[in-house]
Amino acid sequence: MFFKQFYDNHLSQASYLIGCQRTGEAMIIDPIRDLTNYMEVAENEGFTITQAAETHIHADFASGIRDVAEKLDAKIYVSGESNDELSYKNMPKQTHFVKNYDVIYIGNIKLEVLHTPGHTPESISFLLTDEGGGSSVPMGLFSGDFIFVGDIGRPDLLEKSVQMKGSTEIGAKQMYQSIKNAKDLPDYIQIWPGHGAGSPCGKTLGAVPMSTLGYEKINNWAFNVTDEAIFIETLTSNQPAPPHHFAQMKKINQFGMNLYQPYNVYPSTNDERLGIDIRSKEAFHGGHTKGTINIPYNNNFINQIGWYLDFYEDIDLIGDKSTVEQARHTLQLIGFENVSGYRLPKSEVQTQSIYSAEMTGEEEYVLDVRNHEEWDNGHLEQAVNIPHGKLLNEEIPFEKNDKIYVHCQSGVRSSIATGILEYKGFTNVVNVREGYQDLPSSLK
Amino acid sequence: MFFKQFYDNHLSQASYLIGCQRTGEAMIIDPIRDLTNYMEVAENEGFTITQAAETHIHADFASGIRDVAEKLDAKIYVSGESNDELSYKNMPKQTHFVKNYDVIYIGNIKLEVLHTPGHTPESISFLLTDEGGGSSVPMGLFSGDFIFVGDIGRPDLLEKSVQMKGSTEIGAKQMYQSIKNAKDLPDYIQIWPGHGAGSPCGKTLGAVPMSTLGYEKINNWAFNVTDEAIFIETLTSNQPAPPHHFAQMKKINQFGMNLYQPYNVYPSTNDERLGIDIRSKEAFHGGHTKGTINIPYNNNFINQIGWYLDFYEDIDLIGDKSTVEQARHTLQLIGFENVSGYRLPKSEVQTQSIYSAEMTGEEEYVLDVRNHEEWDNGHLEQAVNIPHGKLLNEEIPFEKNDKIYVHCQSGVRSSIATGILEYKGFTNVVNVREGYQDLPSSLK
Amino acid sequence: MFFKQFYDNHLSQASYLIGCQRTGEAMIIDPIRDLTNYMEVAENEGFTITQAAETHIHADFASGIRDVAEKLDAKIYVSGESNDELSYKNMPKQTHFVKNYDVIYIGNIKLEVLHTPGHTPESISFLLTDEGGGSSVPMGLFSGDFIFVGDIGRPDLLEKSVQMKGSTEIGAKQMYQSIKNAKDLPDYIQIWPGHGAGSPCGKTLGAVPMSTLGYEKINNWAFNVTDEAIFIETLTSNQPAPPHHFAQMKKINQFGMNLYQPYNVYPSTNDERLGIDIRSKEAFHGGHTKGTINIPYNNNFINQIGWYLDFYEDIDLIGDKSTVEQARHTLQLIGFENVSGYRLPKSEVQTQSIYSAEMTGEEEYVLDVRNHEEWDNGHLEQAVNIPHGKLLNEEIPFEKNDKIYVHCQSGVRSSIATGILEYKGFTNVVNVREGYQDLPSSLK
Amino acid sequence: MFFKQFYDNHLSQASYLIGCQRTGEAMIIDPIRDLTNYMEVAENEGFTITQAAETHIHADFASGIRDVAEKLDAKIYVSGESNDELSYKNMPKQTHFVKNYDVIYIGNIKLEVLHTPGHTPESISFLLTDEGGGSSVPMGLFSGDFIFVGDIGRPDLLEKSVQMKGSTEIGAKQMYQSIKNAKDLPDYIQIWPGHGAGSPCGKTLGAVPMSTLGYEKINNWAFNVTDEAIFIETLTSNQPAPPHHFAQMKKINQFGMNLYQPYNVYPSTNDERLGIDIRSKEAFHGGHTKGTINIPYNNNFINQIGWYLDFYEDIDLIGDKSTVEQARHTLQLIGFENVSGYRLPKSEVQTQSIYSAEMTGEEEYVLDVRNHEEWDNGHLEQAVNIPHGKLLNEEIPFEKNDKIYVHCQSGVRSSIATGILEYKGFTNVVNVREGYQDLPSSLK
Repeated sequence: MFFKQFYDNHLSQASYLIGCQRTGEAMIIDPIRDLTNYMEVAENEGFTITQAAETHIHADFASGIRDVAEKLDAKIYVSGESNDELSYKNMPKQTHFVKNYDVIYIGNIKLEVLHTPGHTPESISFLLTDEGGGSSVPMGLFSGDFIFVGDIGRPDLLEKSVQMKGSTEIGAKQMYQSIKNAKDLPDYIQIWPGHGAGSPCGKTLGAVPMSTLGYEKINNWAFNVTDEAIFIETLTSNQPAPPHHFAQMKKINQFGMNLYQPYNVYPSTNDERLGIDIRSKEAFHGGHTKGTINIPYNNNFINQIGWYLDFYEDIDLIGDKSTVEQARHTLQLIGFENVSGYRLPKSEVQTQSIYSAEMTGEEEYVLDVRNHEEWDNGHLEQAVNIPHGKLLNEEIPFEKNDKIYVHCQSGVRSSIATGILEYKGFTNVVNVREGYQDLPSSLK
Repeated sequence: MFFKQFYDNHLSQASYLIGCQRTGEAMIIDPIRDLTNYMEVAENEGFTITQAAETHIHADFASGIRDVAEKLDAKIYVSGESNDELSYKNMPKQTHFVKNYDVIYIGNIKLEVLHTPGHTPESISFLLTDEGGGSSVPMGLFSGDFIFVGDIGRPDLLEKSVQMKGSTEIGAKQMYQSIKNAKDLPDYIQIWPGHGAGSPCGKTLGAVPMSTLGYEKINNWAFNVTDEAIFIETLTSNQPAPPHHFAQMKKINQFGMNLYQPYNVYPSTNDERLGIDIRSKEAFHGGHTKGTINIPYNNNFINQIGWYLDFYEDIDLIGDKSTVEQARHTLQLIGFENVSGYRLPKSEVQTQSIYSAEMTGEEEYVLDVRNHEEWDNGHLEQAVNIPHGKLLNEEIPFEKNDKIYVHCQSGVRSSIATGILEYKGFTNVVNVREGYQDLPSSLK
Repeated sequence: MFFKQFYDNHLSQASYLIGCQRTGEAMIIDPIRDLTNYMEVAENEGFTITQAAETHIHADFASGIRDVAEKLDAKIYVSGESNDELSYKNMPKQTHFVKNYDVIYIGNIKLEVLHTPGHTPESISFLLTDEGGGSSVPMGLFSGDFIFVGDIGRPDLLEKSVQMKGSTEIGAKQMYQSIKNAKDLPDYIQIWPGHGAGSPCGKTLGAVPMSTLGYEKINNWAFNVTDEAIFIETLTSNQPAPPHHFAQMKKINQFGMNLYQPYNVYPSTNDERLGIDIRSKEAFHGGHTKGTINIPYNNNFINQIGWYLDFYEDIDLIGDKSTVEQARHTLQLIGFENVSGYRLPKSEVQTQSIYSAEMTGEEEYVLDVRNHEEWDNGHLEQAVNIPHGKLLNEEIPFEKNDKIYVHCQSGVRSSIATGILEYKGFTNVVNVREGYQDLPSSLK
Repeated sequence: MFFKQFYDNHLSQASYLIGCQRTGEAMIIDPIRDLTNYMEVAENEGFTITQAAETHIHADFASGIRDVAEKLDAKIYVSGESNDELSYKNMPKQTHFVKNYDVIYIGNIKLEVLHTPGHTPESISFLLTDEGGGSSVPMGLFSGDFIFVGDIGRPDLLEKSVQMKGSTEIGAKQMYQSIKNAKDLPDYIQIWPGHGAGSPCGKTLGAVPMSTLGYEKINNWAFNVTDEAIFIETLTSNQPAPPHHFAQMKKINQFGMNLYQPYNVYPSTNDERLGIDIRSKEAFHGGHTKGTINIPYNNNFINQIGWYLDFYEDIDLIGDKSTVEQARHTLQLIGFENVSGYRLPKSEVQTQSIYSAEMTGEEEYVLDVRNHEEWDNGHLEQAVNIPHGKLLNEEIPFEKNDKIYVHCQSGVRSSIATGILEYKGFTNVVNVREGYQDLPSSLK
């Protein structure tokens, strides 16, 4: 049996290719839209991708399950464990809906479907047994957004992203039961999760790509809280607000979108679109085009830009063409294909900034763009709190020429925020470089 | 003034980027569809591409002039020197039709339009004067398919590719006059042609990318034949047959096609399409999938595959994915976008072959796939002559299990031909490896 | 804690980068010589590589442990569990020799050294506990060549490669004990091995990159044979012959060699060196330079070329420059830096070949180049058996112009063998294309 | 005949590959050290590089002529037109010294040597005639640093860089004569120069890669000044100061250095080396490591870093690894191989800056880092002038904590200068962003 994990750093997402050497068949688990990497490995290892399966309707990236069906004419397996207005629609003819305890074979590899609701009602996991390798016991579990390394999936996305009232409570209860059931599986099985560190699909996901059930039983909080009420309380509190694009992901993955194809981006012919500068924050602050917003193209790009994308509006990216093309590709992984053009950086304006250590506490206008939990843990007295993700659409309670000191925790989000204020016409914005963490201790 | 030639080895085609440093404006001359390379250089040099121009309606590759207009919102200049059923149709709003002696400025660079018919009736050339550089005399001529290095454009394509009866004779006469007119330009101007060695748009194009008018006056046959009749006779005789795709090119460039975007190719899900194996001929003969045809992906690829493409039929390419993607891109440069899938090579059958030196002359069935001129210069007595480009569609006068020895001049075209015969069901085909050139001298 | 496996397909070798996010420190386990990939990931994740450790003196690739010490000025940890003429010599000043139960910290990550002899006397494993992540129980074991997925390390390499008489028996006994000890570790720990499928360091390694101890206890033969004698017998029988380069690896890794730096290869200026043609076997058989040997550059390259390399002789590689540069790099990973030049392929001669199915059994001279086990399981009556790895140096019992039919099992090794025979001056060699497996069943 | 120009943007240097298709031989003219690009084209076009020639002992980049001789075992041709302490030493055995009117053949291509002193005493040019193409008249002139597009070579480098007293005057006279001689060549020949725009080997080189002699006769000042004294005066005045590395280049190219091989760069283990930050000036000013100097890796990199390199001192580069490796390679092209390590950017300090338009004229301490000619054309009254190239070694007449406003013409050089001042311990440096050009007009 062949096994390979594919980890996308921008999505913090794990997908898998498994193959049976005897028959040459291979399956992708939880594919992203761009199938290039799977196909390269399959080609190199001598496999034909004949199947794909996914664990649930993803809410954080655009699924490639339909791409596998239609481009490769491969069988695809999705959950048939719910059948309501939130379940899969418009699936291609190659689709098989599977339920609890259904069995799928990829050559001599056996996958047993386990219904593991909680994150979403239809969520399933796949328990793998390498029968071709002579084993009669399971090797591991593709756990999707059920069990992560060090955490479990959050049950509140449907409620928060698509307004499914009451679904958080229901999901949390289902999760309690799903975890309880999972305890019956053997300790030695590997856990192959759908996400790693940085994903907003859980709170404290580890940066270790895989785990084992026995290890999680000991170290994962969810296996150690046996009281249902406490479990639910713990699971549903302090979950980070889901970025705006999650609602759109749910729609794309439920109803489908066009198949993935790359596209080239050309110099913008219209400077009035929203311009996102994808360079480093240092480069942006050193000099940028007036009225543009800085979201650096790094591993946090999707999490941050997710707050600012309107899927029905075009944007321009600002940066060198080669990085812009990469960012365009990354945005396609969440189904956003409206990068209308790119602009080269211009050094029109620089950002006013101040070292955190030089703050005196006497500053009249201070805007704290951290989230509410951080704010609650301590903040400057005179500050106003608007989380950065809401700045674009909310009223800012200052005059256009007030000298506004903007800070976050470490300087990343304030960097985005200064651009938004500039974009909205504020003319005297000061970035507090190292954020709240480096303020003089007398001020905290 | 900035100047750069872009040479595409697969198309044997030259295009140009010129820019005025003072104003930052740049123009492309004779763009191909994929604008990536022009844009990279423009970005690196600090230019904005504001204009493009083309010398004529190309018949050998798909023009990118409409792409420049619509993607970059740039002004484009095309010939207004003909206005009949063969002239430009459906041009975008950014189009300017220019005529003899019209003047175009790119910043401080002056381009004067010269009507130079012959290759086609509307053909124009552009005479450049670097006024920004302080010159009052011309620096060079973008000569398109009028003057090449060592040759001139052929006048017979419209007649042979799109059945414009009588147009060869008319074009040859126009060319005689255009060359005569060109003699008045100064010797020291550079000649910047539209094609180089390997292009089927002329007979004996040089592999030197540029020339000067004075040098051509001395060394180019066309400047040294003063008798009109001899000129026409020389120009119209012995021109190679134009590949089948030329007719399609003319249509695309006259009426337009969709704008260029890259697309990814996926494993074929249908083995019944025509399969083109793009590996080296050695790899193909050493082992290939039965019934596939070998056209190696090298600088001759377009010239050879041009004979076999039907623009309304899908094909599969056979090779590793990365080379297939390159070939897919190259085919897009002639507007062919029907690569429906790729297949990995299989070693099902090997080609029977014989060293040319081992031929005895006693072979009963010999197929000579060279063109008629080569055949006329000497051939095996018992051979039958069908040029390789016609094999796919013509009757082969042998029985399916005859032992057929196939040869060309050097082994390249016979290599393609053996695949076609196999594709058509012949079961006993022998490739004469080194072709006619290495036959025992006693046989020639 | 951050964790990433690096798998080199050419070496079938796994190395690891682990890092502590709180302190920014990272360690490489079992580094190869080229540190590029480790450094790229470290840079991207924000780590500084401060340490490296290796499990034993490798015999199958050139270790990069000294490169880490000297290039990065990082602490390195190697086994201090043996101190004789076969143990580490000439170690850099950054070296720490560690013993059973020693503890190493990378930030808040704890590694406990376990002495696990068997494969080699000094072999150690590292038991990882993610204390920074809040765990007090181990997460996994870096098991080097002790436990693989589905197999364990072979104890016979020192005896077979460097003539350590009796060491196989001693190693097997130690391995029996080491496995016994390992059973005390918890089932849920992950097993992070030093090799995967294709490595000649074991017999039947799986193509799954990781396992768990509990799973191995059930499925790995070594945990299920409790009788010591049977264990030893099973472990030491049927091990594949180690390629010639293993002896050299041992020396390099024990005594050190120059630090890795890339080097460019230039066209060969001397055709008399051994020429290795790294193209596909199809391309080679379709046409190659007389007297050259074909070892395709694929995942088997190192295993096969290992038989033919003399570390004190220069070789030329034959292929396109870009693939040659890759092969040059791969050869550096086993410490071979004598690629003196490259040659472009020429189509001088083709290989005579026959489909296996067309063999009649009447062929007078048959050379079977499979290994002795395969031979023992069945062979053609008239055949002579010389394993392919010995052809270069052994006497071939045929006349130079005998018509010799060469076969292996599936056509890969015979492909190499025909080149060697040609190189040695045999003039009438026929490759049996699909090998023994496709012979008419009447002949087997 | 095949012809291709290779233009290196970092060196502003042109080299050439010419080949005779009939014999397959090719020659490089004025090779750089890294032969990769020449070899790729030769491989693709089917040539063997059998020869190389150079026009003179270069003073601005490290020649690859010895690399061609020793790596490719090719014949090389260098000037034998001087024989003193400044002429070629230690040449490899493949060297041929050629003199005025000597003739070299590359297959059927004829090169005639013309002694064209002026830039240096030994300078030669090569007049090409394509005899294989049937021409009996020359096609073009490889003019090295004799004739450029729009300018001619400067005669003052030996005096300024290697203190050859009086050599400027002698060279200028020789140049006068060489230009006079060149007028006898036909107007239609192409001029293939050794440098293009941006090279400090002349004053006003064009950005058109080639010219013709007839065009230069009309537009190049040097062909239009017939009075010797005026010619010499014009040629020798206002030449930019040669960067410091020129002296070293002369030495390398005269005596030779080790052959080129790539090398990898590792994280620096010593923060006390001179650190050059190669990011954009915006990124540097937005946040950088204290005490480092910013020289962005763009087309001006070599011209600017040339002022600061000590060939006997190690430096660190600061930037992402991939750009650092490119810069390392570029530095090797001028023979500098002491990049000891790289450091990732840190955002320790930001640069204080002011928009030029906000300058009041009341600033007490102003440092103008433009060159003397620029200063002479107008400067701020209170300013002190030290050209940027001298800042590292000269005394700065300010106190360490004076508030120093640093400006150049457009903001590029001041950007470098602020880093140098920081490196030297000045603590209150302000960068005048857009330089002198954007100061309020009242101040100029």
